[in-house]
This record gives sequence, C-alpha cells and structure tokens, in this order.
Amino acid sequence: MNGRLTVVGLGPGRSDWCTPAVTSRLAEATDLVGYEPYLAMVDLAHQARRHPSDNRVEADRARHALDLADAGGDVVIVSSGDPGVFAMASAVLEQLDQQPGRWRNVQIDIQPGITAAQAVASRVGAPLGHDFCVLSLSDVLKPWSVIAQRLDAVAAADLVIALYNPRSSQRPHQFADAIAIVARHRLPSTPVIVGRHVGRDAEHVVVTDLAHLDPDTVDMSTIVVIGSSTTRVLDRPHGSSVYTPRSYAAALPTEQTRVAR
Amino acid sequence: MNGRLTVVGLGPGRSDWCTPAVTSRLAEATDLVGYEPYLAMVDLAHQARRHPSDNRVEADRARHALDLADAGGDVVIVSSGDPGVFAMASAVLEQLDQQPGRWRNVQIDIQPGITAAQAVASRVGAPLGHDFCVLSLSDVLKPWSVIAQRLDAVAAADLVIALYNPRSSQRPHQFADAIAIVARHRLPSTPVIVGRHVGRDAEHVVVTDLAHLDPDTVDMSTIVVIGSSTTRVLDRPHGSSVYTPRSYAAALPTEQTRVAR
Repeated sequence: MNGRLTVVGLGPGRSDWCTPAVTSRLAEATDLVGYEPYLAMVDLAHQARRHPSDNRVEADRARHALDLADAGGDVVIVSSGDPGVFAMASAVLEQLDQQPGRWRNVQIDIQPGITAAQAVASRVGAPLGHDFCVLSLSDVLKPWSVIAQRLDAVAAADLVIALYNPRSSQRPHQFADAIAIVARHRLPSTPVIVGRHVGRDAEHVVVTDLAHLDPDTVDMSTIVVIGSSTTRVLDRPHGSSVYTPRSYAAALPTEQTRVAR
Repeated sequence: MNGRLTVVGLGPGRSDWCTPAVTSRLAEATDLVGYEPYLAMVDLAHQARRHPSDNRVEADRARHALDLADAGGDVVIVSSGDPGVFAMASAVLEQLDQQPGRWRNVQIDIQPGITAAQAVASRVGAPLGHDFCVLSLSDVLKPWSVIAQRLDAVAAADLVIALYNPRSSQRPHQFADAIAIVARHRLPSTPVIVGRHVGRDAEHVVVTDLAHLDPDTVDMSTIVVIGSSTTRVLDRPHGSSVYTPRSYAAALPTEQTRVAR
C-alpha cells in the first residue's frame, strides 16, 4: 500500500495568491505536515490529520511525511511561497537520495507557488522584468565565502538581485558586508526594494536606494531586491513604481557601471 | 474619470495554476487586452470587451490599455506566466516613464503568476532549490555580448541557470554558443532540464545533461534549466527527479568545477 506525497506552496500569505491546484490537494489530503505557522494558514473544513513541526527540522519533517505516504496516506507538506525555492521540495528529495531503497513507491508531486520575490516585485511594479538572480544570504548551509563570491559575480554581471534570508539575529553584520560587495559594482542611486511580510496584514514595502538602505529595516521576514544599472523608479500618485526595462542597449555593463573600489 | 489597469499572469497554461486573485480581476474587467493566444486562454462567462493584438507590439498594447483605463475602464492586460518576468508589466511602466504627464491617475496593479521556470522545475523535482538566476537569451532587446558575459559570470559563480527565449528560428546558432560558455565552468554530466509547453496538453519535459543536450529539442516554447555543480539526478520509478540541495559545503565553486577551456 503506497500513497502520495505532495509538496505545496501556499504563496506568500494572501489566500488569493494560492493556486487552485494547491487548494485542491489540501482538500484531498489525509495528512498535513509542516512548520506550525504554515499549517495554521490552512483553513480547512474537513478533518485531515495535522502534524505540525518546529522550524529547522526539515529533514525530520520530510522523513515523517514520506513514512506517512509509504503507509498509504495522501500526504501534503505545506510550505509558504514556492516549495521549490529554498524550501521543502529539496528537503524531500535529499531524503530520497540518501536512502535509495526506501520510499521507492511513494508518488512524489511538487505544486509550485508564488515565491516572495515575485510578490514583492508585483507590489512596486516590475523590478524583475529583466535578467535576475535569487540568492540566499544564509550561511547556515553554505560558507560565507561562496555567498560573497556569488554576490560579486552577479553584481558585476549587472543582474537584478533578489536576496532571501537577508539578515538574521545570528549574523547581523553580514548583510552590510553583502551590500558593500554589491556597491563595488553599482551606483549609490541604484534602486533597492525592502519588502516585509508581503501578502500578510503586516505588509510593508519600502523603495530606497543603495546609499540609503538601512540594515535595521531588514530581517528574516524581509526580501530585498537590488536593481541593475537600468532599473528605474517612477514617482506615481500612489507611491513609487520600480521597473527594469526589457531592453538593454548598453555595452558591457561592468564597464558602464563599475564605480571606484 | 480614471480607471484601473491590472497586469495579470495566467501562469504557464494549466487553469489550476492561475491564482484566484487573477481570476477575480478577469471577472471584474470591462476590457481585456493581450496577445491573442493568451486572451483565448481566458474562458469567461461574462462579456468583457476583448482587444487582441499580435506578438511583439508590447508598447502599442500597453498604450492602448492605458488609454482604455484613462477613459474609466477596469482594464486587464493578460500575460502568461508572471507578468513581472520578461513580460507586460515592464512594458506598461516603460510607457508611463516615457510620458510622465500622461495617464497620471490610472491606478496600476500587477498580479503575479507562476512563471515557466517554476513550472518546469516542479515537474522534475526541485532544481531551483538553491541559488539560481533567470536569463533571457533573446538578443532582440540586448546585445549578444551582454548575454555572453552574463552567462560566463553566473556559470563561474555556480548558480543554477534558467534560460527563457532560449532559441529562435532567427538565431538558431546562439543557443549552442550559450551552452559552450556554460560548459567552460560545468562538467559534461551537469543535469539539464528541457521543458516544452509546460502546463499545456503538449507538455514534454526531458532530463538530460550538458554533454547530451540536443539544441534541436529547444525552441521559443521551451525553458532550459542547467544545474549547478551540486544539482543531482535520482532515478525514481516514475522517471528522473532532479534537485539542488539546500546545503553547499564546498569551497569556492569555480575552483571545484572549472574544467579545461
């Protein structure tokens, strides 16, 4: 008797940003597994068993969900955002990879969701309208040297940069280090968007620039989007809009935008 | 009398990947503007006026939609995927930027959608599970030299790479050039996912590697995702799964993965 494990993303919080495919899987589930605050976002009339867990126990949570599915359950792991972006989909596949003989017959399905960078972008316009990258600044799972080298590369290549897990209480100073790396390649006037709790009641989105970015406004509930050399800010009656044009007529961007180290 | 212009993304094709926020805006609209095949995906019981247009007339389409909203309409521009990623949201803001005095009082709203890279990723597992970038290979709006320099930078920095507009009939040879740039920094066994028409009836997703990637399987209906040095492929009973682990224990990736030029 083998079941199904679906890894879903609720999106960034607003219920009308959660896809019908995800809603449908939640309604069919026998078991819901997830970080407790995410499970609390699932408002179901019917009676799936709920298995809440703490944060930072992704591997345990993945194994527990796989075992429930192996026993025949229709199990859903609940993530926020997109489960495929710094989230539980990789955690599940890591477990399958580490124990190749186990859970062979559990059907795995991933259901995408709106990820936080898309939500933040949509609130101010279209800063991700051209080439961009999505980086996690957390050094829990990779060394800071790799993070620093990646930041330098994408800043030099003039990509728009979306930063996840930008600043935690365990590493308050690294965010400023990260911004300093980007500032080697970008002008002080480069637009920066700081989005907190996007899609939730406490949503707060600020448009600033590299020179005026205040690290104290940034924490783990924040996504930071740093523009490229072509990203522009418009003053509109309802606030600032930010977009990155679709065209890029310049010569090599490192020549154009590099500023003095 | 001023109206509202909402730019929405339907997602990659499957109706159950379209958010309720988008469905709700479509239902309220007085006017729908968009590339004709996207408008045809909108199945509405009620009678919004439809203004279909050809491809590659984004600026005209944006101005037309802004004029309709300025006259008091509740206008929706229909994109596929996410309108904020290589799509109509930037086109609308470009028009506002070019004519600052015009359309001042039109309320602009962007509604995000699942973008193609997320959909392709979800079909095979979680290849975007760690740091990644999203690049367009089209040289219609930026010079090839910029594209080549960006590819080199992100490949050297060991990011997972999602390629949009990878290969058109006007530039069939550039895709092989792009892959050759990436191959300077990645092993021939690096996993590659080629996703065609994801979310539609003709969906076809292939997991291959850099050495075996066939450019003839790639066209403008395709998204190509190239793994990093840590991306792994699992053989599962239902096919291959691909994921990028959340942890990155290696030293600087360029030292580890660079192969002979």
